[in-house]
This record gives sequence, C-alpha cells and structure tokens, in this order.
Amino acid sequence: MPREVRIRIICTSPSNTDVAFSKMKESPGIFPRILGHEAIGVVESVGEDVEEVSEGDTVIPTFLPDCGECVDCKSIKSNLCSKLPYKLSPWMPRYPETTRFTGLNGEPIYHFLSVSSFSEYTVVDIAHVTKIDHVTAPNRACLLGCEVSTGVAAAWKKANVEAGSTVAIFGLGSVGLAVAEGARLCGATRIIGVDLNPHKFEVGKKFGITDFVNPKNTGGKPVSEMIMEMTGVGADYCFECVGNASLVQEAYACCRKGWGKTIMLGVDKPGSQVTLPSYNILHHGKTLLASLFGGIKPKSDIPILLKRYLDKELQLDEFVTHEFKFEDINKAFDLLTEGKCLRCVIWMNK
Amino acid sequence: MPREVRIRIICTSPSNTDVAFSKMKESPGIFPRILGHEAIGVVESVGEDVEEVSEGDTVIPTFLPDCGECVDCKSIKSNLCSKLPYKLSPWMPRYPETTRFTGLNGEPIYHFLSVSSFSEYTVVDIAHVTKIDHVTAPNRACLLGCEVSTGVAAAWKKANVEAGSTVAIFGLGSVGLAVAEGARLCGATRIIGVDLNPHKFEVGKKFGITDFVNPKNTGGKPVSEMIMEMTGVGADYCFECVGNASLVQEAYACCRKGWGKTIMLGVDKPGSQVTLPSYNILHHGKTLLASLFGGIKPKSDIPILLKRYLDKELQLDEFVTHEFKFEDINKAFDLLTEGKCLRCVIWMNK
Ligand SMILES: [Zn+2]
Ligand SMILES: [Zn+2]
Ligand SMILES: [Zn+2]
Ligand SMILES: [Zn+2]
Repeated sequence: MPREVRIRIICTSPSNTDVAFSKMKESPGIFPRILGHEAIGVVESVGEDVEEVSEGDTVIPTFLPDCGECVDCKSIKSNLCSKLPYKLSPWMPRYPETTRFTGLNGEPIYHFLSVSSFSEYTVVDIAHVTKIDHVTAPNRACLLGCEVSTGVAAAWKKANVEAGSTVAIFGLGSVGLAVAEGARLCGATRIIGVDLNPHKFEVGKKFGITDFVNPKNTGGKPVSEMIMEMTGVGADYCFECVGNASLVQEAYACCRKGWGKTIMLGVDKPGSQVTLPSYNILHHGKTLLASLFGGIKPKSDIPILLKRYLDKELQLDEFVTHEFKFEDINKAFDLLTEGKCLRCVIWMNK
Repeated sequence: MPREVRIRIICTSPSNTDVAFSKMKESPGIFPRILGHEAIGVVESVGEDVEEVSEGDTVIPTFLPDCGECVDCKSIKSNLCSKLPYKLSPWMPRYPETTRFTGLNGEPIYHFLSVSSFSEYTVVDIAHVTKIDHVTAPNRACLLGCEVSTGVAAAWKKANVEAGSTVAIFGLGSVGLAVAEGARLCGATRIIGVDLNPHKFEVGKKFGITDFVNPKNTGGKPVSEMIMEMTGVGADYCFECVGNASLVQEAYACCRKGWGKTIMLGVDKPGSQVTLPSYNILHHGKTLLASLFGGIKPKSDIPILLKRYLDKELQLDEFVTHEFKFEDINKAFDLLTEGKCLRCVIWMNK
C-alpha cells in the first residue's frame, strides 16, 4: 500500500514487552498476532509515495513513528508524532482495520507495535522506518530499535546528563544498563546501580556503574535513604527503569534538591499512579519527566547512535548475551522470563 | 551581629501567607512573632563582615537567601541555598535560638521567613538582602520581594515560556496574574486564566490574559477538558497557583503532549499529595516542575526585574489596588481575607 515498506528481517531481538504480550490472554493481548519490535532488515519492496528508501536499503523499524510532517516531528522538543500517534496498533498505522499478514485460511493476523519483526518478512509504514548505512554487524545494530536506544537517549537527550554528575539507576535490565552507558558517554562520574540481583554489579561495571545498592541489603532502610547517605545531597539524575510507581517516589526522594531530575522509563501496570508529596515538589525544586523511547526521534537519532557505535564510543557488543536461530526463539523467551540474559539476538536466516 | 543588616522599612505588602500565619494557633504559628516578608527599606546600620551594603543603601529583603558561597548559590540551576536553607525560621538564619526583637519584658519576639517586615526596623541576614538602586517608587519596587517576582519568574525562568506559546493559569491571585505578566513578557500569544471569581477576567486582561474559564460554568466538565477543547492539543505551559493538589492533576492533564510543562506554585495543606497516572507520565512526555520563588535568585534577578519595571516593560502599578498607613494594616488583612485586593502596600511612616 502507499507509504508502506516490505522488509526482509535480518536480525530481531525479543524483549520483555514481547514476552508479556505473548502471555496476555485478554485485550490488549489479541491473537493471532506477530510480535517483535526490535530489528534490522533490508527493504524488499516499497509502495507508492515512498521515496525515502528503496530496494536493498538497510533499515531499522521502530515502534514510534517519525512522520516528518506534523508539528511534533518537525519540533526538536517532541518525539510523539501527532499524525500517526503511538498505538499497540493491531492494524497498519495509516489504514485502520487492515493487516498485511493473513493466516492459511485468509484470516487476519494482527500487527504489534507497528513492527511485527518475528517474521521473515514484515510490512511497516515508512514513518516507522529509519534508513541506515549498510552495516556488517546487523546483530548489533538491531539493538538500536528499542531498549538500548531508549536507555542511552534517556540519559543523553531527555535528562541531558552533565559531565561530572551523579546518576542513580533503579533496575539494571537492558534499559537500565543502557541508561548507565548513556550517562557514561555524557561524562557522569558516579553511576549508582540499584537491583535485587547481586550479579548485576559485575555486569553493570562494563557500562560505567561505579556503585551498587541491593535493596535486600540495606538493613531495612529505603533505597532513597541509602543513596542520600552515599551522596550526601542526592543524585543529580535518577532513572526508574523497573516500572514500579513506588520506585518513582524513591527515585524522586533521593534526587538532588535545587536541580535534580527524576526520569521515568519503566512501564507499570495499567492504572498505577505516581504519588509525590506536594510540599517536596514545591520546596525541593526537582523535576519529574519521562518520554517514550527516551526522547529518541528515530530518523535523526538512530543514525547518530549507530555512528557512535561504529566510532567505538557507544558499546553495543556488551549487551548481547545470546544469539539464536529463529527456530530457537523460545529459548530467548525462556531466558528473558528467567532474567538470565541481556539482549538475545535472533538471526532470521541462519 | 556579623553578617546582619539593620533595615528601616519604607513599604511592605502583606500577603495571604502572612494572613494564614497570623491565624495559626499551633506550630508553626508561634507567638509572639513579627510577620511580613515583602518589603523595601533603607540600610540603617550593618554588622561586621558586611561589605555588600552600607548605611543609606536601598534594599529588598527576601525570604529565600542567596549566600553567594555555596554550590547552589553559585550554580545557575538552583535557587535553594544549601548553606542557609529556607525555613520559617523563628530565629536568625546564622544564629540559632537568637532573635533581634524583644518585648517590653525582655522576652524574645520571633522572626518570620527571615524578614519580619511589619516593623519600623528589622534585622536581616545579608544573604537575605538584595541591594537595588534608589527608587522613587518604593510602593512599587517592594512588590519584587515575593509574590509578583515568584509569578513572573515562574514563567520567565522556571518554565522558560517561549514566544508564540499557549499558557494556562489556575488561580488568578497576585501570583497567578504575575505568571500572566511573565508569560506576556515572554511573548505567549494565548493566556488562559482559570478562576472561580468572574471579575478576574477583566483584571487579568491587563496582564495579558486572553481567555477565561470559570470552573463553575463548564457544565460539569473538568477544567482540563475545557482547556483541551479550547486549544485542541492542550496548553504548552500550565501553572497551578492555588495550592490544591487536585488542580495540579488538572493542569497536568491539559498540558500539551510531547513537551508540555506543568509548574506548581501553590502551597497546599501539609501532607497533601500529588497523584498522576503512570501511563500518562510515560506516554505523554510531559514535565512536572516547581520551585520556591519561581526560581528567582534574589541578588541577580531582582535587579533585572526592577530594570524591566523602570524600562516600562514589567507592569507593577497594576498590581497595587490599595495603599495604607501602617496603623491601618488590619484593613489590608481584611481585604486579603475577603479576596478583595491584589497587592496592598503599607507605608511605614506616612
Ligand atoms: Zn509526525
Ligand atoms: Zn521495546
Ligand atoms: Zn547559598
Ligand atoms: Zn510571599
């Protein structure tokens, strides 16, 4: 269809979001649906009115669009397209109630996050496609499609971490570690990681984590109090990467008076609420902010991150703990469920 | 005492904060105390180690200090001094358990907000004193000591309102109208005022308010919904100036996706909580921020605001609805209690 791109997927990387939706029995967990939203591929064919990419181009599809036409996409201040707003979107973004997949009996198979990359071929709206230079390591570049970019950009773009500052990260999954990597690149001198898994400190060191707090080992103290004691004044930037509203409160409580920023990245259960004391909001001069995809504007920012990877500044290799053939994708789902991996890369044709 | 300044008060302006504390029977409402925290005066004498001002200088005392030495006062990012932190402070900032006022029988009379301007003479720590050029209109310049500066700076410094933007202001008291004035100076093209008092629209027009919403006349719709309808996309900046946590939620709900900022200025009851839905924080890319005194750094920013007044950019005259002699200060308290004034100026010696 016009403005659509057919992509042959080369590599894709499942995430906890895919796992969660695969287990969801009720709406928004509809069936049948092709999951997967972090990938790299090659353009196989393009529909009418697609000039940005052509057959053979290497592309990264993304769950957030970048239409290039609306006031948001044209502004440097927003990454939330107002023309094709973000949805879980069982349908194609521009064509409601149509899908590009059908089952053996002609029944529709739904899309997921406008990407659906657990498939040899997928169809993605051009607004959701970022063209990149051909890369020799698609099993690394594919990571820029979601979690790693989210974390790195949260530090780099959204929080705008300053050199010499102190950062606290709640939750050291791929997103949290990517925040550390982003903070490291921005020159943060102290990066405190918080996680229940004691092995995460070793892993985190690769990404610049300098201090570790295990909430199980604080002698009953709230983590915010530990961080206040460690820093004296609180962390300049606190990132919540777990998806737990009460941790947002903890993060807010230990970010520095006067200029501290708390950045929310984790996705909590629907209906959850973040509660902050009015007095502290007013008297402590802190800021609470968040953005999907860490504030990434896909078409301009993903190429920047890729260049930083190729220039050996941004670490991507260190995020990949496993690689599988597509037929073994369930192994990746098991590892994610058990929390035993960072990113697992799936090769579609190996 | 060292670092202290004795000031002869020329004009002072009571505010709702003074009224509230005058009625408070329990802590923090202690007696006997000299209230008043918005004023202008002349230096009568200085203690040791005071070089910044000398006898005869015109000064504005402020409830927030600016010590010039700590990391916060030296940073452009913070206005919350870490050396002499803000307190209601019954004592002198640098000398705990001492006051500079005594009663007829030698009993201590407590200070208020480190200013205590409802007095012919007061003693203020040099960190709380801003020197300004001599002015011919002390009954205008005195307004820069608290509410008007807070509102103007919230728009100008804290929110950094952009030209051409849309602003919504919840509550059109002196602070809310000063936010409008600040937004007008920043070039906001649409300024929506929200107030239960229908007369506020006429008053607000002087300060740039272009649209008015009375929550009583929305046909039961939440104000946030009205503002969404009026703007289509929400306001770029929403200011809460009432001091009501649920209004912070309303303000947050109608600020624009992608880049909207909600700025909290109102002081709610102790213990009140602001509750926001996690989903919206993450998916709408909005920011919640606040600061005492609108982010003002007294010693550098008050002279800037004064210059803008003298250059006929910043309106101050329009805020003064009444002027009284000191003996009639209770009339000002009554007008404030009844909501029948903006700023009342008290002349100490007329
Ligand atoms: Zn767009
Ligand atoms: Zn993802
Ligand atoms: Zn200071
Ligand atoms: Zn005040």
